[in-house]
Amino acid sequence: MDFRKLVERADAVTWAAAFALLLWPALAAAEPAGPKVSDFKLDNGLELVVIPDHRAPVVTHMIWYKVGAADETPGKSGLAHFLEHLMFKGTATHPAGQFSQVVARMGGQENAFTSNDYTGYYQRVPSEKLKEVMGFEADRMTGLVLTDAVVLPERDVILEERNQRMENNPRARLGEQIDAALFLNSPYGRPVIGWRHEMEGLTKDDAIGFYRRFYGPNNAVVVIAGDIEPEQALAFAKDTYGKLKAHADIPPRARPQEPPPAAARSLTLADPRVEQPTLQRAYLVPSFHTAKPGESEALEVLAHILGAGSNSRLYRTLVVDKHIATSAGAYYDSSAFDMSKFGVYGAPSEGVTLTDLETATDAVIAELIDKGVTADELDRSKSRLVAEAIYAQDNQATMARWYGQALMTGASVADVQSWPERIKAVTAAQVRDAARQWLVKIRSVTGYLVKEAGPAVNKAEQGPPARSGSTGEKRS
Amino acid sequence: MDFRKLVERADAVTWAAAFALLLWPALAAAEPAGPKVSDFKLDNGLELVVIPDHRAPVVTHMIWYKVGAADETPGKSGLAHFLEHLMFKGTATHPAGQFSQVVARMGGQENAFTSNDYTGYYQRVPSEKLKEVMGFEADRMTGLVLTDAVVLPERDVILEERNQRMENNPRARLGEQIDAALFLNSPYGRPVIGWRHEMEGLTKDDAIGFYRRFYGPNNAVVVIAGDIEPEQALAFAKDTYGKLKAHADIPPRARPQEPPPAAARSLTLADPRVEQPTLQRAYLVPSFHTAKPGESEALEVLAHILGAGSNSRLYRTLVVDKHIATSAGAYYDSSAFDMSKFGVYGAPSEGVTLTDLETATDAVIAELIDKGVTADELDRSKSRLVAEAIYAQDNQATMARWYGQALMTGASVADVQSWPERIKAVTAAQVRDAARQWLVKIRSVTGYLVKEAGPAVNKAEQGPPARSGSTGEKRS
Repeated sequence: MDFRKLVERADAVTWAAAFALLLWPALAAAEPAGPKVSDFKLDNGLELVVIPDHRAPVVTHMIWYKVGAADETPGKSGLAHFLEHLMFKGTATHPAGQFSQVVARMGGQENAFTSNDYTGYYQRVPSEKLKEVMGFEADRMTGLVLTDAVVLPERDVILEERNQRMENNPRARLGEQIDAALFLNSPYGRPVIGWRHEMEGLTKDDAIGFYRRFYGPNNAVVVIAGDIEPEQALAFAKDTYGKLKAHADIPPRARPQEPPPAAARSLTLADPRVEQPTLQRAYLVPSFHTAKPGESEALEVLAHILGAGSNSRLYRTLVVDKHIATSAGAYYDSSAFDMSKFGVYGAPSEGVTLTDLETATDAVIAELIDKGVTADELDRSKSRLVAEAIYAQDNQATMARWYGQALMTGASVADVQSWPERIKAVTAAQVRDAARQWLVKIRSVTGYLVKEAGPAVNKAEQGPPARSGSTGEKRS
Repeated sequence: MDFRKLVERADAVTWAAAFALLLWPALAAAEPAGPKVSDFKLDNGLELVVIPDHRAPVVTHMIWYKVGAADETPGKSGLAHFLEHLMFKGTATHPAGQFSQVVARMGGQENAFTSNDYTGYYQRVPSEKLKEVMGFEADRMTGLVLTDAVVLPERDVILEERNQRMENNPRARLGEQIDAALFLNSPYGRPVIGWRHEMEGLTKDDAIGFYRRFYGPNNAVVVIAGDIEPEQALAFAKDTYGKLKAHADIPPRARPQEPPPAAARSLTLADPRVEQPTLQRAYLVPSFHTAKPGESEALEVLAHILGAGSNSRLYRTLVVDKHIATSAGAYYDSSAFDMSKFGVYGAPSEGVTLTDLETATDAVIAELIDKGVTADELDRSKSRLVAEAIYAQDNQATMARWYGQALMTGASVADVQSWPERIKAVTAAQVRDAARQWLVKIRSVTGYLVKEAGPAVNKAEQGPPARSGSTGEKRS
C-alpha cells in the first residue's frame, strides 16, 4: 500500500484552506437550517465536536492535534509533516498498514494533513464502524512504534514529495519564497513541508521526540460529522480516547511574532519552465485570532469585493475592462493562530508586462482605499459569503474541517457559529478602513514569476526579467 | 557610572568587523617581523592566546565566549546582548560596578561587544594589573548574581539603545531589513540587538538561563596582547580561570542553515529623515569557515579589487569616470561561523536614480565576471591587503581582536597566521570564478533607502519611490 496516496500534501492543506477561507467559519448555525453542534470535553482534556448529518449512514471522523510546522524546533523543518507520515507506521497493537487496510476494507477513505498550526487525520466510514476507527486513532495517539527500518525510507518519501511539489513546481517555489520574505521572524516563514537540507537530516529520534512532546488527548480535538447521535459519539470517545492519560506537559503555543513591517519587499523567481509569468503579492495582516473584533470579518469582505470571482473589482477592471490580465483575484486567510496573509494575484495578458499589471493592480487597490466600496458591492459580497457557507454545509468533510480548523487556530465553536452574523454586521467603513490599514506596501512582498533566460546567460548579467505571458493560479 | 558608555554596541561590532575584515586574519606571522603567538589550553578547556607586544607596559585582555545572538532561542532575540550588559551587574564577591571602578582607577579602559557568533569583554590595563583583571573576569564567568532590581532597568537601557541606533537610524534599519530578507532560515536574519517586541519581554530568568547554558571556561577563549611573557600569562590564567570547573554540557553550535537561494530580492525602506538615497546589496556567500579552500581568500581579493578605496573598480567607474555616484564600494565579511555576506553599495549623484546606479553597478560586476581581473589589479590588491595587515599590527587591540574573532568563527591560530600566504596565493582565475559563482542575483537582496513622501500620501498609493540624492555609508 502506498501511503503517498493517502497522506494529503502539506501545502495542499494550505491551498485548500485558502480556497475554503471565505467559507470555513460560515456554518450557518445562526440560520434555522443549520445543524446543532455538540461540544464536549473528556476528563483527560480531549475535546469532541459532533455535527449531525443523517442524510446517509456515514460518518467523517477527524482528529486534530494542536501542533504544526510552526511548532518545530528551528533546524528541524518538515518534522510535523514527517511525523504525520510516520503515524501510519504502526503500534504495538496494530502493525504498520493495518489501520489503513481496515479502513479500506470498510469501503472507507482516509487522509492526513499538516499545516503551520495543526496536524490532522481523518477517515470517512460507515457509521457503524465509527467506534472501531476511534479505537485505532486512540491507539496511535500514544502507542506509535518507530524503527529506523520504517523511518528512513519514509524520509525518502517526503523528500520525493518535496521534489514533486516544490522543486518541480515554479508557482509553489514562488509561494515558498514569498512566505520566507514575508515572515521575518515568525516560523510561518518556513515551508510546512520543510527545507530540503533539513528534511534530509530528520531522524527517528526527532520524530519520536516531537510526537511525545505534542501528541496527547489534551492537545487534540476530535470532530465527527455524520450519522451519529452526540451522546453515542461521546460514549464511544470515552471508551476509546477516554482511556488515555492527559499529557502532563504540553508546551504553550507561543511562537516568535513578527516585528512591525518596515520595508516593501519584492522578489523575482526565474525558472526555465515558466511559460506564463505571474504576479503574486502577500500582505501581513491579522488572522481571526490576532485581530480586533470585526477586523478579520472586514478583511473577509474586502477580499471578496476586491478579488473573489468575475464580479470582483480586480477581475472586472483588469480582465474584463482593460484586458491587461487573463486572471486576477484576491484572498484572505483568517485561520491562523498568529498573523496571517492577504493576497492579490494576477497574470498579464500577452504583451503586458508584470510592472504594468502591478501598477494597474495598485490603482484598483488605491481607488478602493480612496473611495470605499458601494452599498451594492457590500450587500452582494456579504450575502454571497453567507450563502456559500450555507451551500458548503452539503459536504460533511467541509463542515468537519471548518470546526477543526477554527479550534486549531484560536477560535471556538461559538465563533464558527456566529460567523454569518459577524459577516452581516460588516460596514462599508470597516471594509475601507481594513484596506487602508492593512493593504500597505511596507506590509507586503510582491513576487514575480518569470521565465528564466537561457542557460548561456549568466544570472549576474541578466537585465530585468522578461515580463510577458499569462497564468494566474491562486497560491496562498 | 553609566554602562551605556562602556558597552560597545551590538552592531557596532558588526560594522567594525566589516571594516576590519580585509585585515583581521592578516597577522603576519609568516613575515619575519610578526609576533610569536602562544596558544594554550587549560585543563578545564579554556583556551589562552598570548600575543607579545613589549613597546609599552600595557596589556589588552579579552575574553571571548562562543555564544552570540545566533544562539538565542527564537522569540528571545537580543538576549545575548542583554546578558552582555548584565555581566556588569556584580557577583557575590564583587558588587555591581566594582570591576569597572577598579579598571578606571587603574587608568584602564574596558568595553564589551556582542555579535551573531560571540560575546566579548575586554580591558586595557597596566601589565602589572593583568592578574587582578583576570580574577575579576573569572569571577563573573560563573558567579553573576542578578535581581529584577538591576535587570529591569537595564532592559530599558537596551531598548533605548535600540531606539537610538536602529529606530532613529534609517541606514541601520535598512541593514536590519536586508539581513532579515537575506537569511531566510539562519538566525543571522535576526538583529543582534533584538526585535523590540521581543526585547521588551526579556526577563532575569531568560538572562540567567542563557548565562548558565553558555558561559564556562570550555566555551571561552582568553586573548592577551601586550607586555607579558606567555608563561607568566599562563600562570595567571591557571590561578584565576583555572580554578573554574568545565561546563558539563555546552550545546554544539549547530544553527539552522540557509536553503539554496532561489529568488533575487529587493526592498525599499522609505523614511522621512532620508536626505540621501542609497543602494545596498548583500549576497549570501561562504565565510572562511564554510568555504572550500581558497574560496574565502578569493572573495577577499575580489572585494578589494571591486570596491576597496578610490582605486577600486566601482569607485573608479561610478564616481571618477561616470560621475553617477558620490560613493561606491564593496566589502566581504569572512568571519562568520555560518554563511556570510558580500556587499556592494553606492550613493547616486544628484539627479541620478537608484535604478540607474544599480544598472551601472551591475555592469561593473558583469564586466569583471566576463573579462576577469588584470595581473596589475591582482598584485596591487594582494600586496595592499597584506601590507595593511602588517600595519594594523601596530594596534594591540586590533591584533587581539583578529585572533579572538577567528577563534570564535571556526578558524584557528594557524589560520590567522597563514592568511598572508593564502592571500598571496590567490590567482586571477580564482577571483573571477568567485565573482561568477557568488555574485549572482538570486543570492542577493538589494535595498533601496529613499526619502518617504509626505504623510498626506497613503503608502498604498505611492508610485515607485523617489530616487535621487546621495549618501553611501557602508553598512555590513
